[in-house]
Order: sequence, then structure tokens, then C-alpha cells
Amino acid sequence: MVINLSNLFNLKKNNSKISDFQDLEHLDGIAISVVNAKLYNPPRDDVVLFYFRNGANFASVYTQSTIVSENIKWNREIKNKKIKALFINTRNANALTGKNGFNGLKEIADELSNLLTSKKKDDDGVIEKVKPNEIIFGCTGTIGEPFPTNKLKNSLPELIEKIKYNQNKYIWVKAALGMITTDLVPKLAMEECKIGNIGIKIYGVAKGSGMIYPNMATTLGYVFTDANISSKILKKILKKNIETTFNAITCDGDTSTNDMVSIFATGAAKNKIINSLNDDRMIIFEKSLHNVLLNLAKRVTADGEGASKFISVIVENAKTEKDAKKIAFSIANSPLVKTAFAGEDPNWGRIIMAIGKSQISIKLNKINLSIGEYKILEKGEISKDYNEIELKEFMKNEKLDIKVDLKMGTKKFIAYTMDLTKKYIEINADYRS
Amino acid sequence: MVINLSNLFNLKKNNSKISDFQDLEHLDGIAISVVNAKLYNPPRDDVVLFYFRNGANFASVYTQSTIVSENIKWNREIKNKKIKALFINTRNANALTGKNGFNGLKEIADELSNLLTSKKKDDDGVIEKVKPNEIIFGCTGTIGEPFPTNKLKNSLPELIEKIKYNQNKYIWVKAALGMITTDLVPKLAMEECKIGNIGIKIYGVAKGSGMIYPNMATTLGYVFTDANISSKILKKILKKNIETTFNAITCDGDTSTNDMVSIFATGAAKNKIINSLNDDRMIIFEKSLHNVLLNLAKRVTADGEGASKFISVIVENAKTEKDAKKIAFSIANSPLVKTAFAGEDPNWGRIIMAIGKSQISIKLNKINLSIGEYKILEKGEISKDYNEIELKEFMKNEKLDIKVDLKMGTKKFIAYTMDLTKKYIEINADYRS
Repeated sequence: MVINLSNLFNLKKNNSKISDFQDLEHLDGIAISVVNAKLYNPPRDDVVLFYFRNGANFASVYTQSTIVSENIKWNREIKNKKIKALFINTRNANALTGKNGFNGLKEIADELSNLLTSKKKDDDGVIEKVKPNEIIFGCTGTIGEPFPTNKLKNSLPELIEKIKYNQNKYIWVKAALGMITTDLVPKLAMEECKIGNIGIKIYGVAKGSGMIYPNMATTLGYVFTDANISSKILKKILKKNIETTFNAITCDGDTSTNDMVSIFATGAAKNKIINSLNDDRMIIFEKSLHNVLLNLAKRVTADGEGASKFISVIVENAKTEKDAKKIAFSIANSPLVKTAFAGEDPNWGRIIMAIGKSQISIKLNKINLSIGEYKILEKGEISKDYNEIELKEFMKNEKLDIKVDLKMGTKKFIAYTMDLTKKYIEINADYRS
Repeated sequence: MVINLSNLFNLKKNNSKISDFQDLEHLDGIAISVVNAKLYNPPRDDVVLFYFRNGANFASVYTQSTIVSENIKWNREIKNKKIKALFINTRNANALTGKNGFNGLKEIADELSNLLTSKKKDDDGVIEKVKPNEIIFGCTGTIGEPFPTNKLKNSLPELIEKIKYNQNKYIWVKAALGMITTDLVPKLAMEECKIGNIGIKIYGVAKGSGMIYPNMATTLGYVFTDANISSKILKKILKKNIETTFNAITCDGDTSTNDMVSIFATGAAKNKIINSLNDDRMIIFEKSLHNVLLNLAKRVTADGEGASKFISVIVENAKTEKDAKKIAFSIANSPLVKTAFAGEDPNWGRIIMAIGKSQISIKLNKINLSIGEYKILEKGEISKDYNEIELKEFMKNEKLDIKVDLKMGTKKFIAYTMDLTKKYIEINADYRS
């Protein structure tokens, strides 16, 4: 059951639309709780708990920034193979908050682990301590403001009380909404596949990259599956698939202190555990996981601040994937290319400029360039089919592809971006005025 | 005689103001001619000739883009130590014009060299052939459009006729205006210094980085001096001083196919030729040259599209200059930092984000950060003196400094940039609509 990407923009136009996710349902081994800890004014849901009743294997990738938030530091210290909970707050990034910020997480983890231990005893009759280091944190919001430890601690009893062991589509959307900042829409994706004869679900939620109230664009992405896969394999498969999904998107070329994408596998589907990347059963799972990650990443891009167009930059037949990626991002991050698309102007000279400034060695007299099906350059010369008026008309579409064929090799990379509009400036310059 | 940089913005507000350049006068060995070749509609001056009657030593630096215009290719082939003329056209970048574009330059060079040879005979009574390869070209404008060879050739007789051997401030401003595209103001700078007892002039003109009708932001910078300095030394001194001037500015992080900065030395001041960088006389000259280059570079930045603020990003006490430069440009190119400045919002979290994303290893608990005299971070923690309301008020200024003290070493780099405004989007997205 795949969510159709053609809904990417429909979704944008109708904030409350949830029918795209109508197949989201219960995912074994996961409980969700969402509360309002009054971090925002006016208040809204701002804390989300994913509780893995019997633990989950997991893996995470974090921001490549050299300055990271306190929760990223906390998460990096977790060496357990299994964890019990993911605690997400919005409004405050817990970045540049120093020791107080880190200690706040410790206090919350202590309290939450006690409460979850009690709950386990009450609900399951099992005495089994949930440890603080079985909890990881996602934070997003303003940086440099004191971390609201007390407000978050005060929200914990209600958070525990609201845990439900059966999920439906509404609670998934509520969770996706509870972690957003200035996003216009909740971001969810799902796939189902089979490992052997056993049906497997892969659900995902994400936020980003609207500017965060009003400090930075953080991407959080969380993928959940009931498949039984070891943490070691989750780590490998996540690292591999992040490159062509969350690491292939750009809104403004900026990088947050808080970026985090994680995968959690409860094993509740009870397939024989997958311990090796060469396991044949991984092929199908990996494809579905890639779809979920790409779907979420595209939704993040399409909801980029002020975006009116979703642009795929396809660079193919490069000598190396690294070359293809560098050229693709040089185009995808170019303000001049992005403003041309905002203006629906077939100003292809700017694409050539962006290829040139990447400083990757190319041969201009080999390059083919097209936008959608419209050929612009063939072997570095203006195509005989080129018709600016037709292309201008075509550029009114909301989804556009730039294709650069370098004819230097066989490697390819696709980057995803949006156009750069006046709305972007409004959001980011005028936010607090 | 230094042009005061405090006029940087006065100049912007008054296009016709020329009093800043009132000391520009005749520079021995240089003749200027400006004509309207009807490349624009409505027509305006679009061709500028600098004619070095007795030749000039020279040096150039060009765009680092892997895709370069035909005139850059032409110039790179010139191996002469001396040249006779610099021919500049605006409106057409002669990029992606292929063989026709290159051959157009050849035709113009052939014709122009013949006409200059005749003129030399008429004016000086000297029979001395001006050769086509003693002419270099500056082009700026739209890329991918056929190069208007015939219109330019047709303009040559008038161009020759208008050559005057005595220059004044009006002709210098006319020349600066004749090479602009969407620039709002002409850009000129001057210094005078002494080599031994001999007075030396260093004059400069530049254009950029308004978008070019409407394809890209090209920077052209030309510096002229009557000093007697060898081409070899000019090359070294230009390369060295470009790093902290024209290579230290950024408007949108994009790079043109046509960028070019050159220096021409006529030797008419008749100082004993300078052949070595270690020549004591070079110290004074180099300082003045640096001032002219920096002054022009700042004027280009201040006139960046839609700019309402001029921002200096000072990164100091880095381990290496390369580190300092990478961090300075990460800040100077960040759309989030630039929009915050447009909104006069002391959103310093974005500066920290930009430092982090540069991926240079830093120690957060050592960093001092300030805007102007306003301390924000001290040793990585929010300064006790920090007052957001006061800083917000201060940010209404048109000239602002961001200072980052890394306390990791002794190296420094200053990058110059402007804010990112809605006007930028208007200029670049809506230009042709």
C-alpha cells in the first residue's frame, strides 16, 4: 500500500487532509502518546512519545554539523542495542543550552523511565526496569533559549496516561503534527511488504524544513517497522539509504544542529531475524524502506519554506557518483536557478553557470540539458527543438525535472529542491517583526 | 587621495552622484572611448575601449568556473607581455556561443587592430602595427544568445573616432556606466601613492553583481596605473591581493562564466621598473592597490541585487586562514543569516548554525560572537551583556559587522556580503515576466 506521491501538493493545499494516510493503522510493538506541554503560545501539541513496550532495535543518523544540540549528544552516548522510547519535543531545540540542557534531558529520562517501569508493572504485570539510557530524544525549535525542563517533566504523567496500545491513522497524524514547528502539513509515509510469508509494515513520520520559530531548519525523520532486523543491519541499511533520500534534499543549503533520522524495528512481526545485508529477504525490505525515506524526504522538500514548485535535479552519466552529486547540489542550491524557477523563466544559462561553478571537470560539447521533456542543449549546443515560449508554458507546472546528461561515465545522482520565492524571505526575514 | 568608503551608500542613493570621484583625472598612457552599439533596447552606452597608446604591462585573473565564456578563452591565449587595448561589451556574455562567438572576437580584434594601427600613424606619425593578439576582451550579459559580432564591428569607427588622449572624471564615470548591466550605480575607486619621489595613480572601475539581463552575476574589475611594473610582478601582486578583495565577496554564492579582474600598468610615470616583489617600493604600491581592489569589491557587494545592508563577516583566531575563510563564507552565503539581517532580526542562532555546517573543527566553549560592539556569545555562552532589544535597534544600520572569535589560533579572514531581500527575488524571478 503505497501513498501516491501525486498527492504531495494536494496535501499542501489542504492542511487537514488525512485521507492520504487512510491505510495507516496499528503497528505491533509501538504505542504513541501526544500531549500539550504549553511550550507554545497559543498552546498546541508539542510533545510526542513513541513507546516500544518490548523494546526495539534501532539505528540513527545525525546532523553533520560540528555544532550539535544536547539531545544529539545524549543520543550518541546510547550504546544499547535496544531502546524503549523516543521522546520528541518541539519549540525548543536544546542547542547552545550547555550543561543545563543536557541535565534537563537526564532529569526527563530519569522520571520517564520510572513512570514507564510502573506502567509496565501495572499493564503487563511485569517487573522490569526501563532504564534512562533506553530513551532517546528528538528536539526541534529555537536555539539558545533555556531548555524548558520543568514544563516537560510536568507533562510526563499525562503523557504516560495517554499511551494507547492500539494505534490508528488519527494518532499517527496527531504524532506527525505534534513534532512540527512552522511546517504547513504533517508528513507521513507508509509501505507494506513481505519478508518470506510474513506481512511487514514500514511507517514513517517527519518534520522539516520550515524554519523553526525562528531559528533553523531542522529535519527529523522517524521510521517504524514491525520487522525483526538487528540493530547492526538497521544501521547499515539506514546509512546506505539516507544518501539518496534525506541527504539528497536541499531547501536552502543550510544544516541544522538537530537533524536526526532514525529507524526502529520492534520485531513484532516475528520473522526470523535478519542479521546480514546479503540476506535475500533484505532486498524487498530495503526497497520499501527506501520508498518510505524518499517519500518523507520529498514531502519535507515540497513543504520547504515558501515553496511553490518541487524540482528534481537529475545528473546522469557522470564519472563518479560524487561528481554527479556535487553538480546536482550546485544546481539545487543555486539561488539564481531557484529564483528562475519561481519566476517560471526558462533561464537555462543559470543551470550552466551552476554546473560550471561546481568545479567538476566536464566537457561542455558533450552535455545534454533538458527541463522535463524539453531539450535545451544537445552536445553543448542549443537544441534545434528548443522553443522558449513552449518551455515557459511548461514551467508553470508544480513538479519539474532538470536533467543534465554529462556523457562522461555511468554514475547518477538525483537531488530534490524547491524554488526560491518572496514567501521564503517573508517567512525568514519578517517572522519576528 | 582616498575615496571615503562611507560614501558607499550615499552613492547608492544618488545614481548620478559623481563627486566621490572628483579627483579622477587623466592617467598617463591611457585613452578611453565609449559608444552605443545599440545592443540594448532602449539603447544606451554598451561598448568601452581602453586604449594603451604605448602598450601596457598587464595581468588578469579569471573565473574559477569550469565553463567559461569565449572571451575568457581568447584572453587566456594571449601570451604577450604587453597589450594595446581592452575592449568591453555589455548585454551579451559571449558564453555558450561556440565557434561563432570566438570567431566574432577574432573579427573584431582584426578590424580594431587595423583601425588602431591607422590611428597611430595619423596621430603619432608612427608606423607600428597593433596586433589582434594585443587586444583583450571583457564581455558581460546574457549567455547562450548569438554574439552580436556585426553590431560590434559596425561600432568600431565611431569608437576610434571618440578616443581622447586626455581623460577627466566624466569620461571615467562614462566608462564605468558603459560596462554595467543591471547595476544601480557605476563603481570606481582611486588611490594615489609614491614610488620613490614619483607620484603614482591607481584608478579602478568595476561592474557587478547585478544579474545580467537576465542570466548571471558577472564581476568585471579593471585597475589602471601609470606605474612602471613588469607583467610578472603584476601577476603575482594581483593574485595575492585578489584573495582578500574580489575573492572575499559574495552576493548569492553563484559564480559567473565571465568573471575577470585585470591590472594594466602603462609605465608612463617613468619610475625605475619594479621587477621583484621584494622591492621596498612595492610595499606602498601594494597597499594602495589593495585599497582600490577592496574598495571596488565592496562597491560590487553593496550594489548586490536587492541589497539593503552591507555585511562584513570577520572570522579571527582560526587555526588556518583556510578554516577562517570557510567559516566566513558559510556565514556570508547562508540564506538564513542573510534573511535575518534583511529582517533586522538578531537571530544569532543562524550564525552558529552556519559555523557548524562549515564542518571546520571548532570548540564551541571558546567562541566569542558579536554583531558590531554587541557581545552575544562569550566562551560559547550567552553574554551577560546581551540585550536583544538593543541589538535589534542596532541592526537597523546599513553597515554591520559579524565577528566570530574562534580562539583556536591566529589566522583571520573577512568576507563581505549583503542581506537577502524580497527585492532579490523580484529582480531574479520576475525580471522577464
